[in-house]
Amino acid sequence: MPAPTRNRQLKLVRRPKPGLVTPDIFEIGEQPVPEPGPGEFRVRIAYLSLDPAMRGWINEGRSYVAPVALGAVMRAYAAGHVDASNHPGFKVGDAVQGLLGTQDYAISDGTGVVKVDTALAPLERWVGGLGMPGWTAYFGLLEVAQPKPGETVVVSAASGAVGSVVGQIAKIKGCRAVGIAGGADKCRYVTDELGFDACVDYKAGNLAAALKAACPDGIDVNFENVGGEIFDTVLLQMNRFGRIPLCGLISAYNATSVPDGPKNLRMVLTQRLKVQGLIVFDWADRIPEAIAELGRWHKEGRIKIREDVREGGLDAFPQVLNLLYTGGNQGKLVLRV
Amino acid sequence: MPAPTRNRQLKLVRRPKPGLVTPDIFEIGEQPVPEPGPGEFRVRIAYLSLDPAMRGWINEGRSYVAPVALGAVMRAYAAGHVDASNHPGFKVGDAVQGLLGTQDYAISDGTGVVKVDTALAPLERWVGGLGMPGWTAYFGLLEVAQPKPGETVVVSAASGAVGSVVGQIAKIKGCRAVGIAGGADKCRYVTDELGFDACVDYKAGNLAAALKAACPDGIDVNFENVGGEIFDTVLLQMNRFGRIPLCGLISAYNATSVPDGPKNLRMVLTQRLKVQGLIVFDWADRIPEAIAELGRWHKEGRIKIREDVREGGLDAFPQVLNLLYTGGNQGKLVLRV
Repeated sequence: MPAPTRNRQLKLVRRPKPGLVTPDIFEIGEQPVPEPGPGEFRVRIAYLSLDPAMRGWINEGRSYVAPVALGAVMRAYAAGHVDASNHPGFKVGDAVQGLLGTQDYAISDGTGVVKVDTALAPLERWVGGLGMPGWTAYFGLLEVAQPKPGETVVVSAASGAVGSVVGQIAKIKGCRAVGIAGGADKCRYVTDELGFDACVDYKAGNLAAALKAACPDGIDVNFENVGGEIFDTVLLQMNRFGRIPLCGLISAYNATSVPDGPKNLRMVLTQRLKVQGLIVFDWADRIPEAIAELGRWHKEGRIKIREDVREGGLDAFPQVLNLLYTGGNQGKLVLRV
Repeated sequence: MPAPTRNRQLKLVRRPKPGLVTPDIFEIGEQPVPEPGPGEFRVRIAYLSLDPAMRGWINEGRSYVAPVALGAVMRAYAAGHVDASNHPGFKVGDAVQGLLGTQDYAISDGTGVVKVDTALAPLERWVGGLGMPGWTAYFGLLEVAQPKPGETVVVSAASGAVGSVVGQIAKIKGCRAVGIAGGADKCRYVTDELGFDACVDYKAGNLAAALKAACPDGIDVNFENVGGEIFDTVLLQMNRFGRIPLCGLISAYNATSVPDGPKNLRMVLTQRLKVQGLIVFDWADRIPEAIAELGRWHKEGRIKIREDVREGGLDAFPQVLNLLYTGGNQGKLVLRV
């Protein structure tokens, strides 16, 4: 593919209304391809990571990071190759990954950008399962939940980018891994391809009974990605001293009003559960450890990862983003630029 | 007071309906005064502790302890004096405290019964602020929340048995202690008598603004006793990496339907909060430590405790119990038998 001669940038120009994202909150602008200054390098972006957290980044108001400013390039993890450099640590041709934004070219001084090895895994995988979602699974499960061999680990959105890795790490650590996913196809993928012990289809009705059958010894760890009724159902089956890394509340991200919280909060009290919010940025200084471990497991075939790579470039960004909230993707969602 | 010649016992005979307790769920029976067997002793009970947790103990269904069985003596912490003994560790005249039940006399083999020193504090205080509520405050704050000097500690039901001790320990540990209580009188008691830095009256309206004024640096620890809207309001002002020992959800105990959970659960995620349920029984082996520390602080005048001792004996138990849920008590509720 010939290199673009202009830099197209997708910018946030309006705050979203509650509900799914509408295309008019973004605008695509063009500028000349930027030149790196002293100590900087330029990346030609090939893949963008689409993540549930993006819905929070474009809202106004307090969150764990400042919202994307109106008029700014949309924040996104991206992977690409260095095509110009005045930086001693990055040379032309290096494959890199980082928060480089929704654009054709990014200028960076190297902050938060990591070099990746495309001999180990294809470029899209480094913004996919071996990127932020994999690190989130790694630290959320191992640091927050600290599962012990023989324990039962449940993870919602189990076929998703984070959930699929959570369950596979749980298996590596000697746990029983039980997924929750929507639909028979996703459940089959979770058990047959990813090797979970069981997967419960929340769309099939009677989630409580199905979960009970899949978790005969109760639930010790619930890696929560979804919130809402699924979370409430899991809460009622938690064992004493259970741990709940709270990684996402995707069921609520597009809610048109503030949704009700978990009705079964009393379980946290009576079972002495620990519910702990987690954001992967808190382990920023340990990302190399996660990359090394996940890369090793991936190479050994113990962690399987599937990206759902969509075409359409920047123009398709709003529609593709919404797939995350309608369950339309199969595996980690990546957009080819 | 002459010793009773019969043992009156308040027994649970029906499960309560949702809402406040009605007297007909209990019945008082009489039996001869029981004699201690080998290795046992008898306690003549003088004071009963009335605790919010009791509402959970009489409900059917899963909780942290088995529910009180129908026909059984109601579970309660009680204090009294040994008046007959075949136990080498307890002699006639010893003042003791333990889960001895709602009755005039209890037989015990010593399990879970601790001797208390009535020279250090009057007998009723050992089922009051120096009993289970004090231990709960001690372990909940120091072990679960681990407050650091200079942090802001908020506690709901701040004039209550647990809350009042939480705030005073927070002060001892160099924190800013902010209470939440219902009504100007309770708030005055919390600041003027107990020495909290501030107390917010949730009945005065605009809790959020009042809390913000009382916590200019945000909230690092929220010791949660209440749940409901108060909890939701506090959540929005929690600082990053804040800790929330979940000790009680008294606002929900008498709810006639399962109440909504915290709407602002997303704060747990975005601020990386830790919400952890706590039951004092989990530190059963460390109760002597709590007694020693609390006793020392109490003797030094650094922890003030107020019991609300009610008369009326076993007959008054249901009405007095309901005071806990209507906010009718001032300080730890104790019933004289």
